[in-house]
Amino acid sequence: MKATVYVTLKAGIHDPQGEAIRQSLSTLGFDSIQGVRVGKYLEIEISETDPSTTEATVKQICEKLLANTVIEDFRFELRAS
Amino acid sequence: MKATVYVTLKAGIHDPQGEAIRQSLSTLGFDSIQGVRVGKYLEIEISETDPSTTEATVKQICEKLLANTVIEDFRFELRAS
Repeated sequence: MKATVYVTLKAGIHDPQGEAIRQSLSTLGFDSIQGVRVGKYLEIEISETDPSTTEATVKQICEKLLANTVIEDFRFELRAS
Repeated sequence: MKATVYVTLKAGIHDPQGEAIRQSLSTLGFDSIQGVRVGKYLEIEISETDPSTTEATVKQICEKLLANTVIEDFRFELRAS
């Protein structure tokens, strides 16, 4: 199966990378940009066919490696590959 | 309006970050992971209300700053904020 994972900073956590992008856009003349938040996007190929096993695996992967759950949220979608 | 931007490596472009994650997952015992591709995910707040103006702005931003269009593809979704 394939999993698409989104990892985003929790609301209220300062995002220096997003702020740097916003400032760069302002310098480039894009004055209508009010805020930028940066997250991670991952596409994962898993040799499983059972959706509930895959869901459990991807949840574990997110908690153990991909997201820092103190400051980040994660969500994911599964589809057959 | 709000834009959600996804920037991903084009097919065939080597992804060392994704490969490092795959190896780490293998070390952690997740042997069913066959491949990982890493992309960028951005949430942008724009002080525009017209969808077509916003679409043009976000496209420009992606091409000028957010994506390296030689090796990366981008796509985005807009919604009212």
